[in-house]
Amino acid sequence: MAGVTNLGGMQDFELRVPRLIDHAAREYAGREIMTYWADGTETRTTWSGIAADARKLAQALERLGMKPGDRIATLAMNHAKHLVSWYGAIGMGGVIHTINPRLFDEQLIYIANHAEDRVLFYDRAFQPIIDRLRDQWTTIEHYVCFDNGEFDALIAGEDGAYAWHEGPERAPCMLCYTSGTTGNPKGVLYEHRSTVIHAMAGISPSVLNVSSLAVILPVVPMFHAASWGLPFAGAISGAKFVYAQVNDPAVLCRLMNQEQVTHSAGVPTVWLAMFQHMDATGEAPQYLQSVTIGGSAAPRAMIERIMAMGADVKHLWGMTETSPIGTAGSKPAHWDAMTHDERLDLISKQGQIPFGVELRVIDDAGVEQPRDGKSSGRLQIRGPWVVKRYFKAEADAIDADGWFDTGDVSVIHPDGTMQITDRAKDVIKSGGEWISSVDLENAACGAPGVAEAAAIGIYHPKWDERPLLLVVRKPGADPSPADINNYLAQHVAKWWLPDEIVFVDSLPHTATGKILKTALRDQYRDYRLASAG
Amino acid sequence: MAGVTNLGGMQDFELRVPRLIDHAAREYAGREIMTYWADGTETRTTWSGIAADARKLAQALERLGMKPGDRIATLAMNHAKHLVSWYGAIGMGGVIHTINPRLFDEQLIYIANHAEDRVLFYDRAFQPIIDRLRDQWTTIEHYVCFDNGEFDALIAGEDGAYAWHEGPERAPCMLCYTSGTTGNPKGVLYEHRSTVIHAMAGISPSVLNVSSLAVILPVVPMFHAASWGLPFAGAISGAKFVYAQVNDPAVLCRLMNQEQVTHSAGVPTVWLAMFQHMDATGEAPQYLQSVTIGGSAAPRAMIERIMAMGADVKHLWGMTETSPIGTAGSKPAHWDAMTHDERLDLISKQGQIPFGVELRVIDDAGVEQPRDGKSSGRLQIRGPWVVKRYFKAEADAIDADGWFDTGDVSVIHPDGTMQITDRAKDVIKSGGEWISSVDLENAACGAPGVAEAAAIGIYHPKWDERPLLLVVRKPGADPSPADINNYLAQHVAKWWLPDEIVFVDSLPHTATGKILKTALRDQYRDYRLASAG
Repeated sequence: MAGVTNLGGMQDFELRVPRLIDHAAREYAGREIMTYWADGTETRTTWSGIAADARKLAQALERLGMKPGDRIATLAMNHAKHLVSWYGAIGMGGVIHTINPRLFDEQLIYIANHAEDRVLFYDRAFQPIIDRLRDQWTTIEHYVCFDNGEFDALIAGEDGAYAWHEGPERAPCMLCYTSGTTGNPKGVLYEHRSTVIHAMAGISPSVLNVSSLAVILPVVPMFHAASWGLPFAGAISGAKFVYAQVNDPAVLCRLMNQEQVTHSAGVPTVWLAMFQHMDATGEAPQYLQSVTIGGSAAPRAMIERIMAMGADVKHLWGMTETSPIGTAGSKPAHWDAMTHDERLDLISKQGQIPFGVELRVIDDAGVEQPRDGKSSGRLQIRGPWVVKRYFKAEADAIDADGWFDTGDVSVIHPDGTMQITDRAKDVIKSGGEWISSVDLENAACGAPGVAEAAAIGIYHPKWDERPLLLVVRKPGADPSPADINNYLAQHVAKWWLPDEIVFVDSLPHTATGKILKTALRDQYRDYRLASAG
Repeated sequence: MAGVTNLGGMQDFELRVPRLIDHAAREYAGREIMTYWADGTETRTTWSGIAADARKLAQALERLGMKPGDRIATLAMNHAKHLVSWYGAIGMGGVIHTINPRLFDEQLIYIANHAEDRVLFYDRAFQPIIDRLRDQWTTIEHYVCFDNGEFDALIAGEDGAYAWHEGPERAPCMLCYTSGTTGNPKGVLYEHRSTVIHAMAGISPSVLNVSSLAVILPVVPMFHAASWGLPFAGAISGAKFVYAQVNDPAVLCRLMNQEQVTHSAGVPTVWLAMFQHMDATGEAPQYLQSVTIGGSAAPRAMIERIMAMGADVKHLWGMTETSPIGTAGSKPAHWDAMTHDERLDLISKQGQIPFGVELRVIDDAGVEQPRDGKSSGRLQIRGPWVVKRYFKAEADAIDADGWFDTGDVSVIHPDGTMQITDRAKDVIKSGGEWISSVDLENAACGAPGVAEAAAIGIYHPKWDERPLLLVVRKPGADPSPADINNYLAQHVAKWWLPDEIVFVDSLPHTATGKILKTALRDQYRDYRLASAG
């Protein structure tokens, strides 16, 4: 192609994150960003207000001595000032590092020190964390509380006459740590380019379908995989954001109706809580069009109930390492001809693969499996918004062909729909066959009287492992093990039925709301099944 | 930022066009690409069929001696084989060059020679052009007819085991010439990166809103500004395409109903012809959800009639130099609260600015004008899919800040909506004020009995210029100049009313269907208005 590239062409344009906020401030200047604060007050700003404050914050950060590439951390729930901190830190060339306040102390200490955070913005609700860990954080020079006046004071003296820091599109802009259940958390360093491409893919009709008409209440926290990219996708679309600093379902339900929220996004437990609120009060969100569920799979009964409310349900599958969108549920061409049950079947799976990323399933020998909906194996992913190397790691996290191993076990169906069948380490191996703990749990959650369930493999001399089902009953309900097994027998293969069912008061969860299987496996390590003889 | 870029990050991923067809073939393998051929036959293939044939074509082109960077031309209407030629030529590293068969001979000769096309694929309907110009095309080595068996024979012997040519994302992939009314046509060299980013922006809900549910009949030809990017956008979304090699409204209407077409895109004259067909037969497209109109502004009455058919109407404004999307109509946040007239007012304008490009309006002194809906001036644009330098040009086509001057006169409204008020050279300058020839024409098209109208400025000793309105009457209608002026008086300022109205049998059009103002100005150069005394 020698010479041709000098024969003309298109404009240079770096895919930089500040272009997102510039676009929103220019084209959707007056579109609101609303916040409900923990103290019950409500404030409203706009995309142009966010941009103006972000410029002031960039000035303030430079005044504090921050340099391009420095990590600026947050320990905060969802609100407009948190959004300002993202665009302000990134706009001065910094790397915004969102810390999950639900992590254990030792993880919080490790993460901030490993990231070498220099500034920490935090919600005053997390003051006890600061007080407790401050002495053990070795790199943080400045602590600024978002909601006690300190943040406002920090930027008050700045004039906002600031030109965003320029740099290459492959420069980093954000750092998110995985909340792994084993080993130290690992940091994923998002780049300007990966973030912008991910956001452009995210708004498309087959992914999050975010237009300028969207009013989004992201229940997914901003510290959870970049809030699934919504703060960036929303800027492209000029969506209105409704942020809540608290996750009380009564508050969320009221805000959804008051602000006519069309799009919501969160983990399944958000909806368990909302359903309880709805059942107790008779209230329900009235304007929802699209409910995106990620983090864990939504049980079929949950999907059905949200659909009955008139909203589309989308599964979003992904991980911190994938920015996070890996798949998203979308309607296929033959949607109109599908029955209700066929639609439920489809929506219960993890969705389709957006342009940009590639997914494949391999067996233990590394051989790619056919898209037949049956051949399960380890799920791998590659693409522009997938991790290449963890922060400060010595080696790449991908193989020679660019594939990142997700640790999930899945199948891909002939229509391109991906279905997670389990985490690789959670599969129950019985007699050489695999039982999906996830499928068993989802089925159990549909049984009358069951609020939550977890399935783990217990040692068995004949079968290697057999399932034990741990069940949290609904308040006032009293199902027997036989009741549950009778129900399960209609939904899973006979040999999948748990050998025993144990009722517990609660199940342990990770900081991101997933059932903590490692803790359960530790707790029941010496459990002996009666069937083991 | 020294060092930080070595601390981890995301994967490398070149934004290359073959990734689009790979995605479509992988994720939407069975989605149909249907073609209605000029001889009345219909054929169906799929995205995976297009990809397979494109690989064979890439092999065949290499067999013919084609090298990366070489220009491969087409002279063809819309059909599946034309689509194959795009992905095949681009896939072997070539540059697909779509030639507009409606150009004059001297332009056709100039363009192919200037592009140094080495292969020409063509429809047999254009055989007379080939026969006429073959001796004057100095670089074309291979002529291959799409629809007489030659194209099929060319690829029949290939096995399709071909890995797409790899290269930088800034390499060129497509060449489109502007059909300028003065001077030689100029070539715009699209790049892989600009094309992919443009396609990602194009499918978004606020632009073309193309999901996998979309069934698109692009009336806009593939030789007209890359068919507005639809062949690329459709591959991302897995849309079904319905292609017609002919533009007979009876055929288009039948195909729209037979294939349940949801999305159509074309110039306004397509809809004038469709309305005549509807009026004559009582037939109408039944499944349209979204009608995109570009090339020229749609008259208000046209928009209203399409809306009454139940479809959303979108204006798309752009030019070959902008890939072509510059603005697209989208619903604002307050859409539900707007009256029918307010919606019509909004849709009649050119739409909003998508993420990626920036637009501004400057006055004659180069000063940026406020977005007040009143301050008009020259429209400029910049962004990743905007031309930097024309093919083989000696200098850039943009100013030092990257702005490309569109030659349009426009205003931007406070809500971000852009409105073209005229082509800079078509403005009628009367007494130091500007009369928009476009506004005058659009208003006149609403008058009873008027089929088409053109306004041009005629010399006037007192006012410098005054408008002359040329009118084509509808069949059987006989409006008088007074009838038209009485109607116009309700829609435009008194001083805009044309001094004279001349009835003509037809108006001259450019190869892309726009009224050829230069020809009219030449024809009426010596016209003397009675008002001139």
